[in-house]
This record gives sequence, C-alpha cells and structure tokens, in this order.
Amino acid sequence: MDKVNAEIARRMQSEHTKLIPQVADYLIGAGGKRLRPILALAAARLCGYRGDRHVYLATAVEFIHNATLLHDDVVDESDLRRGKPTAHTMFGSKPSVLVGDFLFARSFQLMVATGSVEVLGVVSDAAAVIIEGEVLQLTAANSLSGGEPVYFEVIRGKTAALFEAATKAGAMIAGAPGAQVEALRVYGDALGVAFQIADDLLDYGGASAALGKNAGDDFREGKATLPVLLAYARADEAERAFWKRVIEKRDQRDGDLEQALEIMTRTGALADARARADAEAARARTALDAFPDGPLRAALADIVDFVVQRAY
Amino acid sequence: MDKVNAEIARRMQSEHTKLIPQVADYLIGAGGKRLRPILALAAARLCGYRGDRHVYLATAVEFIHNATLLHDDVVDESDLRRGKPTAHTMFGSKPSVLVGDFLFARSFQLMVATGSVEVLGVVSDAAAVIIEGEVLQLTAANSLSGGEPVYFEVIRGKTAALFEAATKAGAMIAGAPGAQVEALRVYGDALGVAFQIADDLLDYGGASAALGKNAGDDFREGKATLPVLLAYARADEAERAFWKRVIEKRDQRDGDLEQALEIMTRTGALADARARADAEAARARTALDAFPDGPLRAALADIVDFVVQRAY
Repeated sequence: MDKVNAEIARRMQSEHTKLIPQVADYLIGAGGKRLRPILALAAARLCGYRGDRHVYLATAVEFIHNATLLHDDVVDESDLRRGKPTAHTMFGSKPSVLVGDFLFARSFQLMVATGSVEVLGVVSDAAAVIIEGEVLQLTAANSLSGGEPVYFEVIRGKTAALFEAATKAGAMIAGAPGAQVEALRVYGDALGVAFQIADDLLDYGGASAALGKNAGDDFREGKATLPVLLAYARADEAERAFWKRVIEKRDQRDGDLEQALEIMTRTGALADARARADAEAARARTALDAFPDGPLRAALADIVDFVVQRAY
Repeated sequence: MDKVNAEIARRMQSEHTKLIPQVADYLIGAGGKRLRPILALAAARLCGYRGDRHVYLATAVEFIHNATLLHDDVVDESDLRRGKPTAHTMFGSKPSVLVGDFLFARSFQLMVATGSVEVLGVVSDAAAVIIEGEVLQLTAANSLSGGEPVYFEVIRGKTAALFEAATKAGAMIAGAPGAQVEALRVYGDALGVAFQIADDLLDYGGASAALGKNAGDDFREGKATLPVLLAYARADEAERAFWKRVIEKRDQRDGDLEQALEIMTRTGALADARARADAEAARARTALDAFPDGPLRAALADIVDFVVQRAY
C-alpha cells in the first residue's frame, strides 16, 4: 500500500496545470478506506504474485473509484463526502467534472502500464458497467416498481463491478489458473453486493434500527434501496400508499422516517436485508475455498466480516 | 466509414438503460464532420493496412471526442452545439456527465478490441493531455498574461492531441515503420493546431473580418484566443486597457466587438493568426512527403486545405 500511495501521489500530478493535483489531492489525499486497491493487491498476492505490476492495477482502481465519486457528487449535488465539503462545493463543478475525467484517463494509462490487454479488457468492461449502473440509478432511484431486480442491477454496476474487476484482474496479473481467477471474481462480486446492501442498511441505522448521525439521507432523497423494496413488497394497501408517497412522490412529513423504520422492523424488511447481505458474505467466503489457508486468505475473509458487520 | 458508423451505432447501446443510447444518439447520431475517425482510417490505409482493427480505433476516437463535447457543454453551460440545443439542455446535466463517462469507457473497450497495448498507450496518453488542456483552458481562458505559450499548450491539449493520436495510432495499427508513424504523428499535430487556429479566427469572421452569423461568441466570453493575444502583444497603452477590460474583466459595451475587429485588422493580428495557421498547414503537408503520391496522401492533403480554408 505504500507503493500504491506513492503511485497515487505521483499520478495525480499534471505538468500542464496545478488545479488537477489540487482537486485530486483534496479528494484522494483525504484517504478513505482504500478498500479497492487493497483487494487488488491481496488478490494478486494470494495467487502467488511477487512482482510490482499489481500496484498499477490497485492505483487505477482507486482512481476510477474517485473519478466516479467526483462525478457523483456533481450529479447528486452533494455537499458532504467523508465528512468534508465535496470537491465541487470547494472548487466548483467544472473542475470536478474535468478532474474526474482526468482520473479516468490516468487510470487507463496505469492499466497500460500493467502491459496486459486482458487486464485492460476487464477494467474497461467494469468502467462501462459502473457508469451504466449510475445511469440506471438516475432513472430508477425513486421508483418502487423495478423491485429487487433493478436494485441488484444498479448495485452490481455502481459498486460490485469495480470490486469484481479489482480481484479478478489481480488474479490475472498473477497469471493464476482459470479456477482461481473465477474464484476471485466471485469473491469480488459477492463482497461488493454485500458492501452495498450493508451501506444501504446503515442508512436506516443497520438491522438494529438504531439511527446513527448520518442515517436517513437515503430516505429523505427517496431512494428505493433494499430495505424499502422489501417492506414495499410485503406491504398492505395503506403501507403501499405510504411508500409511494414518501419514495416516489418524495412528499415527506415529520415522523415519516420513524414510521418507515417501524414498518421495516415489524415486517422484517431490515432483518431480511441483513440476511441478504449475510448470504452474499457467505458466498464471498466460500469462494476463498479455492485457496489454501494462510494469512492472505484470512485477510480477505476478515474484509468480508468488516464489510457486513458495519451494518449489524 | 460505413463500418465506423455501424460500430458507433452498436457501441452506444446499453443492455442496462435506454437513456444512454438516447443521449449518445442525440449527439453522435446528429453527425458532425467525423473528421477524427476519417483521419484514423486514412492514416492506417496510407500505411498499407488492409485489416479491420482501425475501425475500432476510429470509433474510439470519435467517442472520446463526443465525450469531451458532452462534458464541455456542461462545463461551459452552452445552449447550442452544431446548431441544435445541447444534450444537457435536452436531457439535463446529470445524463450528460454520465453518458460522457460511458463514451470514455466504451472508447477504452474499443481500444482493447484493437488488441494492442501500444495503441492503447497512445490513446490513453492523449486522453490525459486532452483533459489537462481543458483544465488549463478553464484557468487561463480569460487571461492575457499567458500569451502564446499558454494558448498553444491549451489547443495542443484540447484539439491537436486527439488528431495526433488518431493518425499516429492509425499508423501503428498498420505496423508502419517508425519514420511513417512519426510523419503521421507530426501531420496530426500540425493539422490539429491549424484546425484550432482556424476555428478561433472564424469567430472573428476569418481573416477577412467579415462576421458570420455565429461570430463573436469567443469575444463575448472573453476568450484569449490567438487573434486577441497577437493584438494585445502589439498594443499601445490605450489598447492594452481595452483588451484587459473586455477580455480579463469581461466588461463589454456596445461597439466593443467592432472596435476589437478594427484593432485586429489594423495591427495585422488577424492576418498573422492566419499566417500561423498556414504555417501549421504547410508543416502538415510536408509531413506527408514521407509517403509516395497516391489518392490517400492526396485526401489527407485535401483535409489540410479544407481545415484552413474555412478561415479564409
């Protein structure tokens, strides 16, 4: 990760303009969990890789992630990211759009540095799916009618596709056999889905329904996340009307969030959403059976625990 | 070009969302000159290429161009593009940002389809330089102090880099010898610079100073393009104050555009800008000397004439 952090610092530079490293550093320098690069590195090492090319992959994946964050915050007009004012509120939306583009371009230069067309194929395919997920979310975010199929299509795009690309391409850089590449692909996909369900649960305080300080944002934005969709699917006439009003019409009143939580708890929607996250976590752990026991496999299993336990 | 148009139509599809082909088709389907894909195809064929992989390159280059147009129009809040309402006024800025991202991702999938890491390197390097040029333009657009060096840095980025990548990578796909790759690189760069100078001249009615219907937009936006910079460089005290007011402060009054044109004509700024375009056009034509006479070389020479004559 030291090498990744050095590569991040180096590749955000521009010989043409100082504004790019300013904006990029504001977002990426601020940290974040660096979960995606860790996955790329760990996947390559788990497959026995001893070289340095996985550092390029890990950096590229972090750049793609941050490029989508920059553009998401512009698109969503968000004010806060990781507890700080978003880049577009600090620098304006023009630099945010263009520096996002720059990070995309840099990520492809980094992928070129891996020297593998196959790896480039995996990551560029993922980039397209990520953006398709974002667009689908744009058109389906406040709709209850798509149900679980659209929800999973969105989160596979916007979240799981990059996890999957990180671990699959990590294995490919290691020259791992097909079964290991597939195992790490499944691991990344399942972990990504579990991660996003847990994230969506957290917005309702997790399965315990105890609201944290940032909870309720999704509800206020009328997002049709999994807990809402599960509650809607088992709702009676009156509850369906409630969900349509608060989610689809975004006509919300005092006490609506508390009522939503009460319905989600009573109908078991929160517990079921958690069960879905647990099932995906189990799928991720099972995929690791393709590898012998050892510290790297254990680390990847720990990441699964970390990801779902956030929402407990 | 039929194959490129078919590839464009095919690659703008998305199995996840209909909004992407809608927005993409609105912009790309509307046409445009398709100059960049023509350059990529002609460069490959001029080097004797007989395969089909240059179609992927040509499509990728057109997608990158249109991705930057989508994002430019959002960044510049432009209302019209090619005489039609811009995509962001039709569909909103969110779809414009995301569909631009999608076209970037698709362009890299297309580059992967060429099967060449070297070609991917050329195009991903160009993508980074293009965006650096856009950012530099953002910070330097209304400044007279950067002078010609910053102007040429900006237009090399925002315009010439993609022309250069199209012709250079076209030669590389053909497996051309180094001297031919370099000749087509120089051709693309010189053509791109000539193209942008001509474009900037056109905004002042070309060297004839006869204003066309879309003329004066750059002036009203206070853009420090070459004619302005040349006039500013040879201005006396009073004229310097004029340029600082209208360009840097964007404090414009009735009659300012006419006065700008009068100064530019009298000081020879327009004629000199045209001379720079002509010099770049000559550099592009000379680069073609690396190739024997023939219809493809003649076609590339005709493109040079076409590009500069727009501004006569």
